[in-house]
Amino acid sequence: MEIVDPTSVTAIVNVGDDTELHGLHISPDIDTVTYTLADAIDPDRGWGLAGETWNAMGLLDRYGNPTWFNLGDQDLATHIVRTERLRRGEPLSSVTAHLAASWGLTCGVIPVTDDPLRTMVTVEGTQIGFQEYFVGRQHDVAIEAVRFDRVETTTPAPGVLDAIASAERVVIAPSNPVVSIDPLLAVPGVREAVAARRDAVAAISPIVSGAALKGPAARMLDELGEEASAVGVAERYAALAGTLVIDEADADRRSEVEATGVRCVVTDTIMRDVERASALAKVAVA
Amino acid sequence: MEIVDPTSVTAIVNVGDDTELHGLHISPDIDTVTYTLADAIDPDRGWGLAGETWNAMGLLDRYGNPTWFNLGDQDLATHIVRTERLRRGEPLSSVTAHLAASWGLTCGVIPVTDDPLRTMVTVEGTQIGFQEYFVGRQHDVAIEAVRFDRVETTTPAPGVLDAIASAERVVIAPSNPVVSIDPLLAVPGVREAVAARRDAVAAISPIVSGAALKGPAARMLDELGEEASAVGVAERYAALAGTLVIDEADADRRSEVEATGVRCVVTDTIMRDVERASALAKVAVA
Repeated sequence: MEIVDPTSVTAIVNVGDDTELHGLHISPDIDTVTYTLADAIDPDRGWGLAGETWNAMGLLDRYGNPTWFNLGDQDLATHIVRTERLRRGEPLSSVTAHLAASWGLTCGVIPVTDDPLRTMVTVEGTQIGFQEYFVGRQHDVAIEAVRFDRVETTTPAPGVLDAIASAERVVIAPSNPVVSIDPLLAVPGVREAVAARRDAVAAISPIVSGAALKGPAARMLDELGEEASAVGVAERYAALAGTLVIDEADADRRSEVEATGVRCVVTDTIMRDVERASALAKVAVA
Repeated sequence: MEIVDPTSVTAIVNVGDDTELHGLHISPDIDTVTYTLADAIDPDRGWGLAGETWNAMGLLDRYGNPTWFNLGDQDLATHIVRTERLRRGEPLSSVTAHLAASWGLTCGVIPVTDDPLRTMVTVEGTQIGFQEYFVGRQHDVAIEAVRFDRVETTTPAPGVLDAIASAERVVIAPSNPVVSIDPLLAVPGVREAVAARRDAVAAISPIVSGAALKGPAARMLDELGEEASAVGVAERYAALAGTLVIDEADADRRSEVEATGVRCVVTDTIMRDVERASALAKVAVA
């Protein structure tokens, strides 16, 4: 279902959860976005490729390599090609464009930066990489802090600031505000670029009835001392987004959301199927 | 069937046909030796792992990577781990020992050298890598010359010269003399070390009735102007091997073999099954 012309859409994607395993550069968010847009993602897992096999992992295990991060056989090809091209000196944005084009995508998929940027999470007094927290510890431990290692020295990848500046509408996806959206905004220049387009920016609340539909977003906000609610999200995005889309379940908090200075749109935000996802997209770009 | 105590055996393996594909370091001979000794090799193909799947190749193809060299999903894990360890600065011999130990091998598997050494084949006036000739062109083109790129600057890997010097018996396997055995001997010091043990060295002729049982050995010898026969092999190895084991089919050429100065043992050299392979091994070490 086409809401907008795909060639007019650019997805700016988080790289803070990138990691290196087995000497391969893994970009989980880029791959999830690419596989999803290519309609190749495994719909049940929500990550990785449909029809995937897992035979290489058995041998990696035999060789004593870490196995806490599951990599499918087909998916490994993505990491192999990405790593090969990065090692040759190709920037991540160019590699990502090649992979997206190989999947037949006509929209843009751009990593927010070509520079190394790693989301680090402090748990039990120790900083660990995001994937160690999210996959290795199954995000089953309270976070004390989140920081984006080396973010000060990053610059936005080619096309990122232009896409924000020239977009008819900027949508902040209902992703985890702490570890998916914040690392995008932390790249010097990006937060300012989004704020400069505030009237054109619509955020979609990832928190519905005080809970995240997927993942630990609500618990993370809570652990960081923020309100895990549509209102908390409004406070977080108020300087960036002129509009916040919240779920019907939170309709009773509309006035509190509006008190943060954002226009509030109430709709069904739960993307149960492609029809509802399309309807939400229509609202967000409207 | 145990002919000798495996812990007393060391295989010194060719690396001239190593290649880099998809940014991965591939060592086909090392892997074939390791998988064979681990009883994990695909018996029909004679290379790669039994029960292999090939799903990563499809995605490598989608990404425009070369697909003329087939890599199984499990096999890819071997190349990934090897590449990761080499990139960290671990020598190939140490990586190979780790992989062999992971397969439960108690014998030694040592690459002849830790240094880069590449077998180059001249066909149609152009030098190409061995795998491009062997797999890419399916060795379906006459060779004009063979050289071992950078061999002058290689040194034997740790343990190679010791294994040759201290072995009760040195066996030159019935591999392709031109592209499997010669690159071993071309590493400075190896030919001399083998020659110094000539009385303890037994070679097995890979040529039976003027043909190779597998691969292009006979045609290559012929194309290089040598006699593709047990006698040609005897001439090639006479300075190195005190004994040449030839097949019963070539019994009528025993006196010609002996005229080159080597002791000639005639037996069934065709390893149709493990029993006959064991019998041949017994003869070779006797």
